[in-house]
Amino acid sequence: MANHVYKIIELAGTSPNSIEDAINNAVEKASETVKNMRWFEVQETRGHIEKGKVQHWQVIIKVGFTIED
Amino acid sequence: MANHVYKIIELAGTSPNSIEDAINNAVEKASETVKNMRWFEVQETRGHIEKGKVQHWQVIIKVGFTIED
Amino acid sequence: MANHVYKIIELAGTSPNSIEDAINNAVEKASETVKNMRWFEVQETRGHIEKGKVQHWQVIIKVGFTIED
Amino acid sequence: MANHVYKIIELAGTSPNSIEDAINNAVEKASETVKNMRWFEVQETRGHIEKGKVQHWQVIIKVGFTIED
Amino acid sequence: MANHVYKIIELAGTSPNSIEDAINNAVEKASETVKNMRWFEVQETRGHIEKGKVQHWQVIIKVGFTIED
Amino acid sequence: MANHVYKIIELAGTSPNSIEDAINNAVEKASETVKNMRWFEVQETRGHIEKGKVQHWQVIIKVGFTIED
Amino acid sequence: MANHVYKIIELAGTSPNSIEDAINNAVEKASETVKNMRWFEVQETRGHIEKGKVQHWQVIIKVGFTIED
Amino acid sequence: MANHVYKIIELAGTSPNSIEDAINNAVEKASETVKNMRWFEVQETRGHIEKGKVQHWQVIIKVGFTIED
Amino acid sequence: MANHVYKIIELAGTSPNSIEDAINNAVEKASETVKNMRWFEVQETRGHIEKGKVQHWQVIIKVGFTIED
Amino acid sequence: MANHVYKIIELAGTSPNSIEDAINNAVEKASETVKNMRWFEVQETRGHIEKGKVQHWQVIIKVGFTIED
Amino acid sequence: MANHVYKIIELAGTSPNSIEDAINNAVEKASETVKNMRWFEVQETRGHIEKGKVQHWQVIIKVGFTIED
Amino acid sequence: MANHVYKIIELAGTSPNSIEDAINNAVEKASETVKNMRWFEVQETRGHIEKGKVQHWQVIIKVGFTIED
Repeated sequence: MANHVYKIIELAGTSPNSIEDAINNAVEKASETVKNMRWFEVQETRGHIEKGKVQHWQVIIKVGFTIED
Repeated sequence: MANHVYKIIELAGTSPNSIEDAINNAVEKASETVKNMRWFEVQETRGHIEKGKVQHWQVIIKVGFTIED
Repeated sequence: MANHVYKIIELAGTSPNSIEDAINNAVEKASETVKNMRWFEVQETRGHIEKGKVQHWQVIIKVGFTIED
Repeated sequence: MANHVYKIIELAGTSPNSIEDAINNAVEKASETVKNMRWFEVQETRGHIEKGKVQHWQVIIKVGFTIED
Repeated sequence: MANHVYKIIELAGTSPNSIEDAINNAVEKASETVKNMRWFEVQETRGHIEKGKVQHWQVIIKVGFTIED
Repeated sequence: MANHVYKIIELAGTSPNSIEDAINNAVEKASETVKNMRWFEVQETRGHIEKGKVQHWQVIIKVGFTIED
Repeated sequence: MANHVYKIIELAGTSPNSIEDAINNAVEKASETVKNMRWFEVQETRGHIEKGKVQHWQVIIKVGFTIED
Repeated sequence: MANHVYKIIELAGTSPNSIEDAINNAVEKASETVKNMRWFEVQETRGHIEKGKVQHWQVIIKVGFTIED
Repeated sequence: MANHVYKIIELAGTSPNSIEDAINNAVEKASETVKNMRWFEVQETRGHIEKGKVQHWQVIIKVGFTIED
Repeated sequence: MANHVYKIIELAGTSPNSIEDAINNAVEKASETVKNMRWFEVQETRGHIEKGKVQHWQVIIKVGFTIED
Repeated sequence: MANHVYKIIELAGTSPNSIEDAINNAVEKASETVKNMRWFEVQETRGHIEKGKVQHWQVIIKVGFTIED
Repeated sequence: MANHVYKIIELAGTSPNSIEDAINNAVEKASETVKNMRWFEVQETRGHIEKGKVQHWQVIIKVGFTIED
């Protein structure tokens, strides 16, 4: 196995639907410019409230991707 | 922009269905007496187990609301 | 009330569907050998990414169960 | 089981005698105005020193109580 | 010395000028309804940015006050 | 000195009397099945409240024991 | 509201004058190449000392900015 | 009020009897050489186990004292 | 891919030689009774000192292994 | 470059004026007896309140200084 | 001294040999595209296990580099 | 067993060679003036980078020693 090096970036995604959706939105948007993403890890789960209801979910994640040669 | 002051309270909500539902239950119950809630942030996600299955989800959140003049 | 003693173990469950499913998978698998599980508490929420999408969710939980006489 | 919502408050109690006493003092004083307290959790244990001896104990706790309908 | 009991609340104050000002704004606004505040402790220092400059500072503090008889 | 290996387990003990008693209860119950326990370390101190008084103390500890040959 | 995705970067700014200045220096320098910065959050406040006086302040911040389409 | 400066030291005390005793032992021993101790704050509570019983308690505390002119 | 469930245990290993050796000792000793260990993660690095020199290294790790069917 | 060894001490400084002043007061007072201080790092920012206003700021810092031969 | 601004990135390096090697691999790979790296700080030390032995070490570090004019 | 009291100090050691060496350098230098050091515990592992390579390792440790009568 080669000595892989990963870079880790931090992203925040939002969704009106669910925590999982907020994470997926962040990952899919980032995949437009970042290749070889391998894993993520949730840092914080937050959200906005309007009129006494959760209006959207916001999740901050770290994402690791391999630096290719 | 005015110099807003927010108060932050801590709540625990429960639901048999999902993490998002447990958060929504806490926010909606609190909205009966607290006005102008703006954001929340998850502190802990826990739950109770009965007969080898998750019986209900319990989420502890912080909720911020503006102190009105 | 008796002076209960609990043991706490740490588990990681995975699921292609949701965070709640990953937790349920860990609890149900553990219930084959561990009796009297009472509560859990999420430690970390992570996951694997393939081709710019979340492929599966991985949740690390602590689970408490009573030590029976 | 209903979908209970809890509110969590933070208190500091003091006692010249012991850590347990400082917690009891905070809980008993709060019970004059807060009903349905269910659990507490210690946040910090501190104290004041005079003439090379612990003069009183101070314990900061979080206390959860049900919001009744 | 009596066995004092303190209650601790969490506030967020904002200011366009400085971190100290954001804290003072939170304390002074709260003093309109909360008596006998004794100490505070900074939890988080944040802020908003517009056009590449810090537009206002936001500080989250815990404030302790004595519960009077 | 040999290269000792320790295993660390997590336990929660309860007592109506004191924090020390809750720890002792966990250690003594565990000693029925675990040999060679050497040290413990408190993780969390919590408790249950009934009618405005602490009803019992609950302490979560980590306990280390040597794995014997 | 659209499903915004933010990227979060970490910066350290320094200033001989104040904590606020050190943060402003980091934000203004970064704004030369990063557009749409929205918020920051202080991670660590440090500094260097020479001849028994604080010579300069160093603040490590996280900065969030929107990823534009 | 003068601009007091405090120094903070870290101590570990032990006792066969209780957590409070272990703290008192550390404070009293330190008072032989350190004057003007004002407050302490518990960092860790640990202990040693022999034959399935807690043999002694060990508490790590931070202690603050004024630097006198 | 199946929905794997992992169990995570905590171990402390020691070595007179190096941090890596202390980890290897814990992993190799545990492998006598635990099958299918997959990853570890360092929790704490400590050690004992005698006559002003490090006498042995002690590393506390978490180890994850698959629960097989 | 020589293999420098630093000692790190913890100090609390106070000031009626600002957070920066409280840090400077701690550093300048300590410089009367401690030579070769090189850096500091803020641990906690607190303060006292009187009559609904911040009366003085208190900052706890760690300070590193070289141990000279 | 100029008011330096640093950017901080997070990397994960791996090595079959040692913790130090895993860090060096991350730093050397990153140096192909990042200039002026000045310091690093270890965030997590992990690794993979195969057949009861550590197969490779994985270290997550933060690296700071100056943003040049 | 007597009721031992320990004092805990914080040190930073450096070495061009390894993490273990940086710790040993701190312990050996401190042993010139501090007697009866018993244990250490790593707080932070850092280092300096020059020309894309780790130039030296820096480790911050806490060291405990008995206060003798």
